[in-house]
Amino acid sequence: MSSPIIFYDIPSTLSVNAWSPNTWKTRYALNIKGVPYETVWVEYPDIEALAKKIGAPSTGTKDDGSPSYTLPIINDPNTGKVVSDSFLIAEYLDATYPGGNTLFPPGTKPLIAAFEGSVVGAIGGILPLQLALSCYILNPSSQKYFRATREATFGKKIEEFSPAGAHRDADWAKAKEGLVAVDGWFSKNGGGKFVMGDSISYADGVLGGWLAWVKIINESSAAWEDLAAWHGGRWSTYLTNLQPFAAVL
Amino acid sequence: MSSPIIFYDIPSTLSVNAWSPNTWKTRYALNIKGVPYETVWVEYPDIEALAKKIGAPSTGTKDDGSPSYTLPIINDPNTGKVVSDSFLIAEYLDATYPGGNTLFPPGTKPLIAAFEGSVVGAIGGILPLQLALSCYILNPSSQKYFRATREATFGKKIEEFSPAGAHRDADWAKAKEGLVAVDGWFSKNGGGKFVMGDSISYADGVLGGWLAWVKIINESSAAWEDLAAWHGGRWSTYLTNLQPFAAVL
Repeated sequence: MSSPIIFYDIPSTLSVNAWSPNTWKTRYALNIKGVPYETVWVEYPDIEALAKKIGAPSTGTKDDGSPSYTLPIINDPNTGKVVSDSFLIAEYLDATYPGGNTLFPPGTKPLIAAFEGSVVGAIGGILPLQLALSCYILNPSSQKYFRATREATFGKKIEEFSPAGAHRDADWAKAKEGLVAVDGWFSKNGGGKFVMGDSISYADGVLGGWLAWVKIINESSAAWEDLAAWHGGRWSTYLTNLQPFAAVL
Repeated sequence: MSSPIIFYDIPSTLSVNAWSPNTWKTRYALNIKGVPYETVWVEYPDIEALAKKIGAPSTGTKDDGSPSYTLPIINDPNTGKVVSDSFLIAEYLDATYPGGNTLFPPGTKPLIAAFEGSVVGAIGGILPLQLALSCYILNPSSQKYFRATREATFGKKIEEFSPAGAHRDADWAKAKEGLVAVDGWFSKNGGGKFVMGDSISYADGVLGGWLAWVKIINESSAAWEDLAAWHGGRWSTYLTNLQPFAAVL
């Protein structure tokens, strides 16, 4: 019996707690693999110190040239490995825990890596809207950090990212247009519940992670109700199909 | 022994004749499957009449609401089926000719459909450049048609799509940036010769089709020499690996 993997995620004020698309990808991956894990919740300003302390690799570079650190990170006490980056974590889980569901059927790693780009390309139009709304569901220390860093990136106030009204309506319209493409890809799966058909894969971690973010941030809004009905209810049905892999442990 | 499939492609003034990315996808697919086929060359102004004559489905809608027709189209005398659209043709070939190489390994249709979106998204920055240069290698009747329709779409003269100099250099820089992403996906394939690793698939028809177009239109130019050397020579090596499937029959 293996010891639980430590999974570092970013908390929120919501009852589900988990919200970030990038950490949701890892949460789905862990649940799909069925490996024991437990979540340690880390506020944004504490991520860098944690990563350095446990020896997690950086995932990028800041404007000043120094390394940047992001969640998800996992720390596997069974192997002593610390892994950053959702895709690298999924690869690690398949390689280290070959039992249970397979995240990457043979030959699909390049396609699933590209799929992530496709999904972001298709529904990236709501990124400013999603970031703005995400800010408000964070705990105070994360909210302060998130606001400062995202406002620096976009060069404007969070409140100006996607103001309610015509601007936000246009962002939703872009999302709907993008989901037409995703619906077209999905419809090639022979009618199965998951991206690749009847078998779940990391492609579901990717698409599920993004859609979970949209649902969680907009839940109970008219906008989500609207999106949930698009394409014959495909997106709400899909998230329901992923529910067995959506446990927040 | 089956009769050869009739494959309708668009000719050019180049010695290789075949040049279009969309028909190259089908040519790769036919060669990968190893089914007998022969090419019938059709100039742009003759495509619609041909499609109507043989009962090929339309692939879109014109601005005036009437159906539009595009190549590739195949006409399979063994089944009496006429199929339009490169992806639908690839699906048809796998379903009808299950022997030989498999274009879509189980569950990969949605991923390969999305992959096409990813590739176009990544290297679409050189689309205006590619269209402009493609115009000049067409036969007179196709060139006149191509110029008129593409100039109407972009609202400017072909010569203004990507003028040599700073504008064109910027288009190449965008292509290079986009190919960084494709290189990242490709590098997940375990070092194999093809997108999915050691086994060829329709993902290679897609990526090969686009890269073949770039190479054919720019061959012997400094720009292609430059691109061929990017990413450790990945792209020229890749097209060489696809050469056994690049016959123009």
